Amino acid sequence: MQKNFKLTIEYDGSGFHGWQVQKGDPTIQAAIEKALAKMVGQRVRLIGAGRTDAGVHAIGQVANFNCNTRLGAETLQKGLNSLLPPDIVIRECRQVAPSFHARFDCKSKQYRYTILNQPIPEAIGRQYAWFVRQPLDTQAMQSALEQLVGRHNFSAFEGAGSPRQHSTRTIMAAAIEAAAPGRIEISIEAEGFLRYMVRNIVGTLVAVGSGKLTAAQVITILASGDRSRAPATAPPHGLCLVKVNY
Amino acid sequence: MQKNFKLTIEYDGSGFHGWQVQKGDPTIQAAIEKALAKMVGQRVRLIGAGRTDAGVHAIGQVANFNCNTRLGAETLQKGLNSLLPPDIVIRECRQVAPSFHARFDCKSKQYRYTILNQPIPEAIGRQYAWFVRQPLDTQAMQSALEQLVGRHNFSAFEGAGSPRQHSTRTIMAAAIEAAAPGRIEISIEAEGFLRYMVRNIVGTLVAVGSGKLTAAQVITILASGDRSRAPATAPPHGLCLVKVNY
Repeated sequence: MQKNFKLTIEYDGSGFHGWQVQKGDPTIQAAIEKALAKMVGQRVRLIGAGRTDAGVHAIGQVANFNCNTRLGAETLQKGLNSLLPPDIVIRECRQVAPSFHARFDCKSKQYRYTILNQPIPEAIGRQYAWFVRQPLDTQAMQSALEQLVGRHNFSAFEGAGSPRQHSTRTIMAAAIEAAAPGRIEISIEAEGFLRYMVRNIVGTLVAVGSGKLTAAQVITILASGDRSRAPATAPPHGLCLVKVNY
Repeated sequence: MQKNFKLTIEYDGSGFHGWQVQKGDPTIQAAIEKALAKMVGQRVRLIGAGRTDAGVHAIGQVANFNCNTRLGAETLQKGLNSLLPPDIVIRECRQVAPSFHARFDCKSKQYRYTILNQPIPEAIGRQYAWFVRQPLDTQAMQSALEQLVGRHNFSAFEGAGSPRQHSTRTIMAAAIEAAAPGRIEISIEAEGFLRYMVRNIVGTLVAVGSGKLTAAQVITILASGDRSRAPATAPPHGLCLVKVNY
């Protein structure tokens, strides 16, 4: 019997070359497809809501797969979690309508970027936050971030060599929060993201926060559509895909 | 000029065979001594407040070293942090009185053990908590833990082959707390700890929390002094040396 299953997936991206299957390198998609094949005895193609790059984490990635199996959702989840390495966890598995498609049906995605902003780094949890030593002005960063909300051409914040037809995207919500002393969390929700878009925005916000750039200059960079004018890309390990909305 | 420095050290123990120098295996003490030797141009012996076992973490380990150097505490801290791997961080470096001895002067140590107690494990932060699937009764665990506070012979909670003269220790304070949904933190402060003492106590408390043992049976086990009667040792990665008091 053909069934369609929706998975909600958490992973620590530290040991993976990103989500998408690629030859030779360990990826999250490949690890889950391998475990699935063991369980259902056939090759299964996993459709992810979106790719995450090498080193990026997720607590709410979503994927679906169609499969001819008698197994139920709960059995699949338990089996997958016992077969998968500990840096990938299936948080939820549900049988869904045959029409559900994790990528096409996605309404928006929420990413969170964590910055550790204090004089001394941390050893514990260093895999999950970008350490920035110089004090950041989060008010200035907030002002700059607000300018980016809405529908814009984000070419200036797009990774080189991206195969997109156009670079217009809509940021529906964005916030910056001092989650704990020394800990800054930047949350961005958008219908879709360009390659490296969040990390390029965060790199620019950190330049604003450390006084290298003004919020007004960020508008100029956005309007220019010129990637070479925006500051460096923030590293992947501060980034986490929090939620995919349908 | 001979100086005595006190270090406060954070480390992620995942990649180390514990604190103490041993031939062939990477240890925290060896890594810091190597970095120190580079900075001061001589072999330096680090005196730790206490050993931590392989896989155990620390946010407040303390060590001191005597050294003939013109370098100041701040320079040493910055230099060490730039030379050390990212899983070891010197949180503080202070010049102290020549008489200060990290081990002999230690008044007490505080350990914290973290249990992730929910149906599904977590990928992110899995290195820092013991995943226990079956629901734990923290009230029962609290009752058992309270019995252990005070001065007792802790032979029943001592690792095999320990070279101690006697096994009497004083637990000055102990608490169990639901730090967040699904997250149980057990804190124990004692003048001194036997080998595996915290992990053996935690293993026993989990047996109580899951109904395999009563609080009354824990008293019997404590009184028996017989390690073979106590449940299995909890794994090292949930344990963290939080603070050393002087």
